[in-house]
Amino acid sequence: MARVYNFSAGPAVLPLEVLEEAQRELTDFGGSGMSIMEASHRGKEYSAVHEEAVAGTRELLGLSDDYAVLFLQGGASTQFAMVPMNLLGDGQTADYANSGAWASKAIKEAKLIGRVNVAADCGKEIPTRVPRPDELRLTPGAAYVHITSNETISGAQWKRFPECEAPLVADMSSDILSRPFDASRFGLIYAGAQKNLGPAGMTLVVIRKDLAGRASERLPTMLRYKTHVEENSLYNTPPCFAIYIYMLVGRWIRKMGLDALYRRNVDKAAKLYAAIDAGKFYRGTAVRECRSDMNVTWRLPSEELEERFVKEASKQGLKGLKGHRSVGGLRASLYNAFPPEGVDALVAFMQDFERRNG
Amino acid sequence: MARVYNFSAGPAVLPLEVLEEAQRELTDFGGSGMSIMEASHRGKEYSAVHEEAVAGTRELLGLSDDYAVLFLQGGASTQFAMVPMNLLGDGQTADYANSGAWASKAIKEAKLIGRVNVAADCGKEIPTRVPRPDELRLTPGAAYVHITSNETISGAQWKRFPECEAPLVADMSSDILSRPFDASRFGLIYAGAQKNLGPAGMTLVVIRKDLAGRASERLPTMLRYKTHVEENSLYNTPPCFAIYIYMLVGRWIRKMGLDALYRRNVDKAAKLYAAIDAGKFYRGTAVRECRSDMNVTWRLPSEELEERFVKEASKQGLKGLKGHRSVGGLRASLYNAFPPEGVDALVAFMQDFERRNG
Repeated sequence: MARVYNFSAGPAVLPLEVLEEAQRELTDFGGSGMSIMEASHRGKEYSAVHEEAVAGTRELLGLSDDYAVLFLQGGASTQFAMVPMNLLGDGQTADYANSGAWASKAIKEAKLIGRVNVAADCGKEIPTRVPRPDELRLTPGAAYVHITSNETISGAQWKRFPECEAPLVADMSSDILSRPFDASRFGLIYAGAQKNLGPAGMTLVVIRKDLAGRASERLPTMLRYKTHVEENSLYNTPPCFAIYIYMLVGRWIRKMGLDALYRRNVDKAAKLYAAIDAGKFYRGTAVRECRSDMNVTWRLPSEELEERFVKEASKQGLKGLKGHRSVGGLRASLYNAFPPEGVDALVAFMQDFERRNG
Repeated sequence: MARVYNFSAGPAVLPLEVLEEAQRELTDFGGSGMSIMEASHRGKEYSAVHEEAVAGTRELLGLSDDYAVLFLQGGASTQFAMVPMNLLGDGQTADYANSGAWASKAIKEAKLIGRVNVAADCGKEIPTRVPRPDELRLTPGAAYVHITSNETISGAQWKRFPECEAPLVADMSSDILSRPFDASRFGLIYAGAQKNLGPAGMTLVVIRKDLAGRASERLPTMLRYKTHVEENSLYNTPPCFAIYIYMLVGRWIRKMGLDALYRRNVDKAAKLYAAIDAGKFYRGTAVRECRSDMNVTWRLPSEELEERFVKEASKQGLKGLKGHRSVGGLRASLYNAFPPEGVDALVAFMQDFERRNG
């Protein structure tokens, strides 16, 4: 088997050793005589997986006992609604920073639930960027302040998080566990798993426990954070297999070291941005100081060349480089598990492509 | 590797050939150079899986174009809320048949959303049973009528579905695709995957498309059936790997034949019930005409004996026989993928256990 270089934005590349371990034990988990997919979510095999997944998250994010780690379903898109349903009371206002497509979706859903103040809006600017912390016009007494730590589509990333009195809430779907940060500054963090954490079908939520108590008892049981905090994400059957893969990915991150992975991520992205900036043929999409280490976005002189680039790259085993259908261009997603050699291969291809088409 | 006999109520046993196929291609799906877990949900590899999963469901349930097949997340527990959120308008009433623990949960959630009429209630009767169709006191002009086709905990199953004018809605989590039935009599069917369909983390929803239009535009996007009907369950990233396994399980069901599987299921259950009825040592929990073919529940003369039974059975590779923690007793779940030889092994163990303890 020849592994390709998979630049997909998510679902995305996973560590090969994680896949190989899952493969080895797929029909017989730890000598239990059954697959982890077949194991009861209340039995001892799965319980050990679940507990390690929780503990590994706590360790990697340095969480105090004030926080709960939840494994939910429905992706960040469901969190766009659950956050205001749980945290935005009648008569309150939530502040949202609009940094692009994903922040806009979060804002749209929050507006269905309650009062929203768009505290800064650069969602449609080109080159793309996220707001500067000093741009935010925050509401005194806001229920919370919501940011999107990394915009997967535009390739813009918050490098420094805003200071605010209200609980800070972040959609970290595309950069969670790609860099160290101070989790104690956040009230709630959520992330779809399918970029840095594991397969699609699990949503990581880290919540300060006091915030979970805010929700009305009229809210459906499954949509209340409180339910899942109290039941350790076992109120109903969780997405066990996705959590199992996430547990293995967490082991891999701890083995690699979060700091070392972060340096590796910065290096990978820097190498690709340097190739983009090397001449006038390629043009980065994001404002320089907001350039994402996870999703590198750029354009070529024409859409025709962009299409040719994607096709030829694909033939050379460089897959998933097409930009999001809503914006076009090129995008290389360089999540934790993406190997540095893949960036070298892409850079070499870019140089060759420019020579032939520049 | 020695496979055990896994009687778990869910997550539950899967066909070994499905697990083996998933294992073979876990690091390289169809020569793509990546795992299906790593493949974009909009790429050609996953798209083919998704389409086969939809088409296979249509074929097995004999669905007309009036119905949509959806792959959602959050389990039946989330459907308990989504059904009334989408289908129960202001001033309307929904009829619910209370057949036990799962129906009760559906009723509790619906009451948070709108007006509920419990059309029949045998939820706490022992021996356990489901209502007879002629017991239902239905509301004229009801928004819908809700039943739980099989109560996983009590081991009681609807053998004949009620006739009603309002759309019939069923939680079929624990017996979907275990028997042929006329799907055109239903307005909406939902089922957590982790019993007859695949791993936990995917919820199958079959909905008559006209019903999906009922929901208010104020409902969060992810909680509207309409969103998922219009986007073919690809509004956001679906639980791709769970859907992939479900697709493989669907292939296996089509190969086995639904009628043949149904006969096999009836035979497996009948053999076990015969062993229970053979003397006075074992006592079936459910009323005879409601006995489930999926979850066989029974008691022993004392809780101490029940505990010993579970322990000794487990040592002999008969796993997961403990009844649900809320009711005690014994339970053997005999879903589609549970092999007939496992029932023979259990029956032999039961006879031996009675000889030693009766």
